Amino acid sequence: MAAVRIGVVGATGYAGVEIVRLLTRHPNAQITCVTSESRSGVPLSAVFPHLSGYVPEHLRPFSPTEVAELADVVFLARGNGWAMKHAATLLQAGVKVIDIAADFRLRDPAVWREYYGCEHEAVDLLAEAVYGLPEFYRDRISQARLVANPGCYPTSAILALAPALKLGLVDPGGVIVCSASGVSGAGRSKTEVPYLFSELDSNYRAYGVLKHRHTPEIEQELSAAAAGTAVPVTFTPHLVPMTRGIHTTAYASLAAGADPSGLRQAYEEFYSDAPFVHVLPEGQFPETKQAAGSNYCRISPVFDERTGRVIVLSVIDNLVKGAAGQAIQNMNLMFGLDETAGLDFPAMYP
Amino acid sequence: MAAVRIGVVGATGYAGVEIVRLLTRHPNAQITCVTSESRSGVPLSAVFPHLSGYVPEHLRPFSPTEVAELADVVFLARGNGWAMKHAATLLQAGVKVIDIAADFRLRDPAVWREYYGCEHEAVDLLAEAVYGLPEFYRDRISQARLVANPGCYPTSAILALAPALKLGLVDPGGVIVCSASGVSGAGRSKTEVPYLFSELDSNYRAYGVLKHRHTPEIEQELSAAAAGTAVPVTFTPHLVPMTRGIHTTAYASLAAGADPSGLRQAYEEFYSDAPFVHVLPEGQFPETKQAAGSNYCRISPVFDERTGRVIVLSVIDNLVKGAAGQAIQNMNLMFGLDETAGLDFPAMYP
Amino acid sequence: MAAVRIGVVGATGYAGVEIVRLLTRHPNAQITCVTSESRSGVPLSAVFPHLSGYVPEHLRPFSPTEVAELADVVFLARGNGWAMKHAATLLQAGVKVIDIAADFRLRDPAVWREYYGCEHEAVDLLAEAVYGLPEFYRDRISQARLVANPGCYPTSAILALAPALKLGLVDPGGVIVCSASGVSGAGRSKTEVPYLFSELDSNYRAYGVLKHRHTPEIEQELSAAAAGTAVPVTFTPHLVPMTRGIHTTAYASLAAGADPSGLRQAYEEFYSDAPFVHVLPEGQFPETKQAAGSNYCRISPVFDERTGRVIVLSVIDNLVKGAAGQAIQNMNLMFGLDETAGLDFPAMYP
Amino acid sequence: MAAVRIGVVGATGYAGVEIVRLLTRHPNAQITCVTSESRSGVPLSAVFPHLSGYVPEHLRPFSPTEVAELADVVFLARGNGWAMKHAATLLQAGVKVIDIAADFRLRDPAVWREYYGCEHEAVDLLAEAVYGLPEFYRDRISQARLVANPGCYPTSAILALAPALKLGLVDPGGVIVCSASGVSGAGRSKTEVPYLFSELDSNYRAYGVLKHRHTPEIEQELSAAAAGTAVPVTFTPHLVPMTRGIHTTAYASLAAGADPSGLRQAYEEFYSDAPFVHVLPEGQFPETKQAAGSNYCRISPVFDERTGRVIVLSVIDNLVKGAAGQAIQNMNLMFGLDETAGLDFPAMYP
Repeated sequence: MAAVRIGVVGATGYAGVEIVRLLTRHPNAQITCVTSESRSGVPLSAVFPHLSGYVPEHLRPFSPTEVAELADVVFLARGNGWAMKHAATLLQAGVKVIDIAADFRLRDPAVWREYYGCEHEAVDLLAEAVYGLPEFYRDRISQARLVANPGCYPTSAILALAPALKLGLVDPGGVIVCSASGVSGAGRSKTEVPYLFSELDSNYRAYGVLKHRHTPEIEQELSAAAAGTAVPVTFTPHLVPMTRGIHTTAYASLAAGADPSGLRQAYEEFYSDAPFVHVLPEGQFPETKQAAGSNYCRISPVFDERTGRVIVLSVIDNLVKGAAGQAIQNMNLMFGLDETAGLDFPAMYP
Repeated sequence: MAAVRIGVVGATGYAGVEIVRLLTRHPNAQITCVTSESRSGVPLSAVFPHLSGYVPEHLRPFSPTEVAELADVVFLARGNGWAMKHAATLLQAGVKVIDIAADFRLRDPAVWREYYGCEHEAVDLLAEAVYGLPEFYRDRISQARLVANPGCYPTSAILALAPALKLGLVDPGGVIVCSASGVSGAGRSKTEVPYLFSELDSNYRAYGVLKHRHTPEIEQELSAAAAGTAVPVTFTPHLVPMTRGIHTTAYASLAAGADPSGLRQAYEEFYSDAPFVHVLPEGQFPETKQAAGSNYCRISPVFDERTGRVIVLSVIDNLVKGAAGQAIQNMNLMFGLDETAGLDFPAMYP
Repeated sequence: MAAVRIGVVGATGYAGVEIVRLLTRHPNAQITCVTSESRSGVPLSAVFPHLSGYVPEHLRPFSPTEVAELADVVFLARGNGWAMKHAATLLQAGVKVIDIAADFRLRDPAVWREYYGCEHEAVDLLAEAVYGLPEFYRDRISQARLVANPGCYPTSAILALAPALKLGLVDPGGVIVCSASGVSGAGRSKTEVPYLFSELDSNYRAYGVLKHRHTPEIEQELSAAAAGTAVPVTFTPHLVPMTRGIHTTAYASLAAGADPSGLRQAYEEFYSDAPFVHVLPEGQFPETKQAAGSNYCRISPVFDERTGRVIVLSVIDNLVKGAAGQAIQNMNLMFGLDETAGLDFPAMYP
Repeated sequence: MAAVRIGVVGATGYAGVEIVRLLTRHPNAQITCVTSESRSGVPLSAVFPHLSGYVPEHLRPFSPTEVAELADVVFLARGNGWAMKHAATLLQAGVKVIDIAADFRLRDPAVWREYYGCEHEAVDLLAEAVYGLPEFYRDRISQARLVANPGCYPTSAILALAPALKLGLVDPGGVIVCSASGVSGAGRSKTEVPYLFSELDSNYRAYGVLKHRHTPEIEQELSAAAAGTAVPVTFTPHLVPMTRGIHTTAYASLAAGADPSGLRQAYEEFYSDAPFVHVLPEGQFPETKQAAGSNYCRISPVFDERTGRVIVLSVIDNLVKGAAGQAIQNMNLMFGLDETAGLDFPAMYP
């Protein structure tokens, strides 16, 4: 079977270069095209010496016809608002598209406008785009031409809370998501004072308080899990002085009449066919480093008898299950490959 | 005026040595006695070279009569359960006592038993002990012989939420405290695998989930702020790969009929006479590094219109306002000194 | 072809668990036996959740007969002084042995005594043992029953300097090795105050000044490279607040009459058949993170015209090329496998 | 006695804001003027909330006449090449000048041209400027109008090596300086990819190899210590994933006929009247964290019998003794104040 030919648009960002890194060990994929506007002309390994010997490709400027000729699928790892301008052209040229940015995640263009401050320019594709969370949309992803790869925080929050909502164990009304992320989530183009090492080292802070763009994405998918009941979410992200990893501490109230005793067991069953979700044994709690470099999400759901609250802790590597790894997992499904192809290795610890 | 003569029991732990560091610049205090069981006989500066030239004292084993002779006030910086065995003797000998550990924080010995797993051995002193949070108990501290210095998480959580409860702005029923701490909070005697550098570096995790000992302390003081109404708290502490700092993200529901528009202003007024609490300007959020090495607590209360929740963010240095600095602030009050004496300097940034 | 059956003795240390992690993706190896004295009886994944689903094995106490029955090769990842007591028994039972500790690295038992403070207990095996640095001893390793896996600092220092000595480009007389290492090199059993997070974070210090045990190992191999001329080395290791990585800055004087203009080119040719040594392009210098999690060594040799000195910079991941990865590279050679089997993936960056 | 009135030009850089932080506790100084081109008009505390309540001043654009009117001394904390354009005007207006940048450190304008790539524009002032290392130029600094505050690396290297050279204990011919610095040394305006948190975290690398601008500064002062004999220096700086601190490991050969047995004692005597240099006891080695936030330099000189080399280890906080603190120490001397005024407090540890 011929290897899937891969294009990566925006290969010099953290998500882009992580897609490349992960694909170097994929048994059924071959990188054929890497683009960058700022560094076009040089080999990718000149920008990232750790890829020397693995990716001979030179960076080139983006050209839809070139990409369509060279690749079967293209990962769009550019900033928000880029994919909606270019996806249609790529799809028409016969390339499958996985967008790492936010452009096709929100189904409602009005919500896009509210949170991203501009009109959506590819409204007609919103209905076709599939939200690329395989644990919930495996079948639809398998048939998709256009996949919206989920955000990093939403991945950790939805995997943590959606089972409880779907199983009716918690009340849709009182959800709080308190998350903490490594700094790489800010991206490689955030060359501003607040992202300098000396500003973030030995420092912890909230940001995007009250208005983070991942809030509507979490709400959209949790509401879907709650069979359409609106799930308003208070979401507070924080920056941790580390490069990789997201930890989510999610709170919800036990639903009236629900039995909390089987909570952990219910999660284990819910994710029994999900190769990358690991519900930890009773009494164990996840650590971000247990996911570092890998596509795993580790989850611990517990019940606080004193206050009647369900607390679900989850961790992922924001660049892998929160971006590049999940994108490859989606690609595997889109091309009929084993869901774990190229991703079946453990985290790096310590 | 003669300098207050200071004893520090347990001077080789992180809280103990921080008390010493801060007192080196106190205008009205003189360290006269430092104790350590494990390192007695050597100069304190042999254990901590950064104190060379500042503290000539040798470490000695603890002796209540010796301490009583040498000191006017003694800071007890030993583990939980130590002070309740020795406080009475010290008080009888005429020394004032500030306990950095938990022994005299909880007013109800039954709660002590439940959370600390043993009987309280100085129940008669519990009524006399004053909870050493100057922003709430300034007058009582001024008259106290025995002060229970608050826990680090409770300091950040109570300063964040008590005003809203006291002013009736939030509902006592739905309080969640999601906190993150630097590792020094674990202390210098936690020489176990989970506290090794390689286990904590680039790692973030919750701990003490459902059963952290600071929970009843937070509940006790928030209930006091709510005029005695019980305030059950879901409290989740997390470990951040940094040495100093606590960040608390506290959630509560707006009280029925309360007007959220003056929230920040109300906090500013509430803390107008508190020299170490800084309510940040509108739109600014606190960072732990803005408190590093200093006795300041910075606070941002905000209202989330979408979900009807009040969110209060606060930061402190866990070793200063969360331990040693607050203890000195208490000492200042107990001896009629200026509340800010020895503590009036800004954080170290970056 | 049947998979090589692998035993790992001391699987709960950092080197041991890294061997396991790397072997989970090795195409020709199967872990059949993992031992630990402290944690025997539990699954390895109970100690290291990141291995869940990859290594079903339970930890067992070490038994030479059991190991010999279950494994074709055994990695000894115990402390210094353990292997010399057990290697003979294992070899006699027909198992190949790769010692990760120092026991068989020094050819001269008198040097062992001087630096390790005890008599060597397997002197007869010293002659047989092969120093497991494939870039220099590839053929002998292929034939070996007993391989002494090099130390982490020596690997970085020897790869940096041996070519220049072998090619006569530098003077054997004035070698200085100034290295900096991540903390994981101290191991997982160093549960002492100096290895706590709060002691190492934001801190940098030298250690082992004048008397580090890796000094004679570096001298032995550099002298071999210098065709037997003694190469006395001043070696100063430092601790960096990071988990993985070694950076070596090595200094030597240009040999009389040597031409420094072809220095970089000479290194590139020297390592042309070494799959894991990457001589960086002119003007690029290595960073430890460019090797993280991988078996690569990146090297930059430069000449300082002003002072007549050759400076060679090199980086490795101390747990991979400096321990577990190099051990697997040795295993590959010992079993006639491709030298890169299971190790052909790039570093994790960022 | 009236407080010295202080101006800080470039108060929003790391050195500038550190001068301000340290002066908040100075007993004889008052900040009267802080300038910033980029943020003029806002209060300094709006940029740095940790200074709230301490520095009411608003940032203003630089005006020499305004500064001269408001201040008795001005600290110039701008980039290299700025001070040489403005110092003359300020001096003529009667203000004393302490330049934190490099403009007046090198006595030879040809060396300036070679290393800084432009002509020196205030050659006439070079003879007047005093190199502001109080341990070597205390008397001249006391009389100076214009002080060139030393670079951070040179401070650590000169304090480490100059005594040995001055006392004839080491050979001027073979000096190597291998230093490692926290990231704040790069400054707050280096908003480029290599200074992002994710690029530096868990990473260690050399930089400025063969051509760092601090090399001629170190050579100039070590040559002065060696009574004019040229001291060529191989200098290699490295970046450590931490914010503050410089560690220097300096190597030199024992001078022919010198007795190494009294090395440590000789250093102790040499620095007996230097309040901020602490020669550590035998067998102790310095750690950067033991200087954090303080003006101390800790030093350990040792002799390596095996190789005949003297090794001197030193640590400073690059922003304090390496910049702002040393500048204030110089100011104290220039105004006849106690050399330690405002600087007499220990490091922050941990």
